[in-house]
Amino acid sequence: MKSILLIGQSNMAGRGFIEDVPPIYNERIKMLRNGRWQMMAEPLNFDRHISGIGPAASFAQIWTNEHPEESIGLIPCAEGGSSIDEWSPDGPLTRHAVSEAEFAMETSEIIGILWHQGESDSFGERYKTYENKLLSLFQHLREELNAPDIPIIIGELGHYLGEDGFGKSAVEYQQINKVLYKVASEETDCFFVTSKNLTANPDGIHMDAVSQRKFGLRYYEAFSKRENVLDVLDMEQTWIEKEAKRALTKNESIFVQSTEFALGRLSFEEFMENVSKINGNE
Amino acid sequence: MKSILLIGQSNMAGRGFIEDVPPIYNERIKMLRNGRWQMMAEPLNFDRHISGIGPAASFAQIWTNEHPEESIGLIPCAEGGSSIDEWSPDGPLTRHAVSEAEFAMETSEIIGILWHQGESDSFGERYKTYENKLLSLFQHLREELNAPDIPIIIGELGHYLGEDGFGKSAVEYQQINKVLYKVASEETDCFFVTSKNLTANPDGIHMDAVSQRKFGLRYYEAFSKRENVLDVLDMEQTWIEKEAKRALTKNESIFVQSTEFALGRLSFEEFMENVSKINGNE
Repeated sequence: MKSILLIGQSNMAGRGFIEDVPPIYNERIKMLRNGRWQMMAEPLNFDRHISGIGPAASFAQIWTNEHPEESIGLIPCAEGGSSIDEWSPDGPLTRHAVSEAEFAMETSEIIGILWHQGESDSFGERYKTYENKLLSLFQHLREELNAPDIPIIIGELGHYLGEDGFGKSAVEYQQINKVLYKVASEETDCFFVTSKNLTANPDGIHMDAVSQRKFGLRYYEAFSKRENVLDVLDMEQTWIEKEAKRALTKNESIFVQSTEFALGRLSFEEFMENVSKINGNE
Repeated sequence: MKSILLIGQSNMAGRGFIEDVPPIYNERIKMLRNGRWQMMAEPLNFDRHISGIGPAASFAQIWTNEHPEESIGLIPCAEGGSSIDEWSPDGPLTRHAVSEAEFAMETSEIIGILWHQGESDSFGERYKTYENKLLSLFQHLREELNAPDIPIIIGELGHYLGEDGFGKSAVEYQQINKVLYKVASEETDCFFVTSKNLTANPDGIHMDAVSQRKFGLRYYEAFSKRENVLDVLDMEQTWIEKEAKRALTKNESIFVQSTEFALGRLSFEEFMENVSKINGNE
């Protein structure tokens, strides 16, 4: 199995409202839990109880479309509110991410890292020292994971920052974006993904759910083509609409029924009847 | 800071419906996330996206009542559906729990382990080999965590098992309960907690939310008195009602508002107004 490490702050963890987008159920997408793999369900990250939609689910979904015989595992290690200093090689976030990745590597091969971080460094001239810190983190991860040339995909901070709500304090997000772009352009196997036209929750800092779905597609474009993605992809809206209509496999349908039942929205009789129908219709 | 390791299967992870009990918000209760501490919110465990109320929150809440100047950290490592064989010392669940505990121990002292597991071993005469496997796990954890004499609290499997829904397959739960009681009675620093009068979700296997709150109080009774708890505690219902009326601190009130806002249930203006009121009323 292949796997992807997810690191950064809240917009990698995901804060899009779950009810705003059709769910992604795919038995070939796994998530790491307690050192093992489970079928993915969102929220994928659990850094906060209010975690929601991030970019990784649509990234993984389009990956499975293009790799019809394979499975992909997602390793959620993003931490809301974390600054680049908190991602120092010897800090707990980095050490924990490496530790989780090592569990994943017992049964999978890590083929990429998705990074989104910088809102917490978009003030007080922190951009001036950001580049070296980011480079040192990437180098450290490549060494620790023994992955010298896997692609690291760097997402741009939202263009909506600096305006409203909690986003207002991110006054230097453009300077951080310049550094992110510079790193992606100069470093081998690092690629940049634009946040053009992506929009925020009412808090002005967290990307909304639909934007996260699109962002994930852009991350995949950069990952698969190994090049910077500097503009909106033509297929974003169409892809989202098409995926919402994708027929579920038998296992996925049962997973949905199990979720409804586990949350108390079905009686045991209804659950058994629905599962029986799914099995019968196979 | 003190901390508690939570291990076992789904009823330790928690599957009680969140909406069935008043939430517990307490700034002196933390949960481990990405190797660091966050203020606790339920679901505390994230082994599945359908995780809910387990015994640890009320355990921690009554602990803070009795330790008014201290904080407690919860280390969630329970895994739904796991059998005792999956908790072998060299398996990923145990190694991952030890790894998480080691992150916790960088900033806290582990003072206890809560164990609830056995539904997945309540058939096929698995009870015959359960005792040695459990003892070997406990010995291994005591060695790895360098905690030779911290209390390990063992919760009894629900008396409702073997009857309905998914619980129907747990036909030998009484045999497992006998083994759990034997281990708690014979081993030093191991204590047993009855599940008497506790009830299940409609699935017949997962303890409901109110029962989990009571179970947590019993776990604490065994932990603090260092003795087996073999009957219902008189104070359970009263305690739950009293706690539901506890006044929140300023930080806890802001946490509640932040949660509502992060989930899109308040506008930014409403959020700011509410927070301003909380600060003003101090």
